[in-house]
Amino acid sequence: MIAQTPPPPYYAVIFSNTLRDHPEGYPDMAERMEQLASQQPGYLGFEHARSELGISVSYWRDLASIQAWKQQADHLFAQEKGRADWYSAYQVRIARVERDYSFQHP
Amino acid sequence: MIAQTPPPPYYAVIFSNTLRDHPEGYPDMAERMEQLASQQPGYLGFEHARSELGISVSYWRDLASIQAWKQQADHLFAQEKGRADWYSAYQVRIARVERDYSFQHP
Repeated sequence: MIAQTPPPPYYAVIFSNTLRDHPEGYPDMAERMEQLASQQPGYLGFEHARSELGISVSYWRDLASIQAWKQQADHLFAQEKGRADWYSAYQVRIARVERDYSFQHP
Repeated sequence: MIAQTPPPPYYAVIFSNTLRDHPEGYPDMAERMEQLASQQPGYLGFEHARSELGISVSYWRDLASIQAWKQQADHLFAQEKGRADWYSAYQVRIARVERDYSFQHP
């Protein structure tokens, strides 16, 4: 669902990826990493969708929180496994959210 | 597919949304808007995925390009139509991409 984030500024990590055929173990690990991320200091929210392309966006208080999550031990293992077995390609973009606005159907 | 963007800095518009049931005419309009966006000054790329949540990320050279696209006439009409008929909720986040890195499976 749409992440409930605080007023900007905050940070977004946009993770765009394509998977190889039959990425065994991937869904379980993805879910585990989402849960683990949500327990990290500075975590603000998470959004995910997948069609041909997968897009995961995680939201963070600051760059230090993003750096700490990138270096978290279980996450390092998952990143390594992802490059070895699961992803055909990915791009990570780290961005500072400067403005946001929303709409809700009555 | 993963957008081929130039080295940072550049801007991302993260558009996270949920649709109402039976959003008639939505897929055609979404495709038309993606094509139209790609012809605007400052456009750098586009990524899209949809599961329960839809995430579209468009990439732009600067804030002025984003503002001009937001005000483009056909796009204004599509935004109005989206609020009237298609979206149950959306959140738009405008973010400055400061860093990026990528992986490609050999």
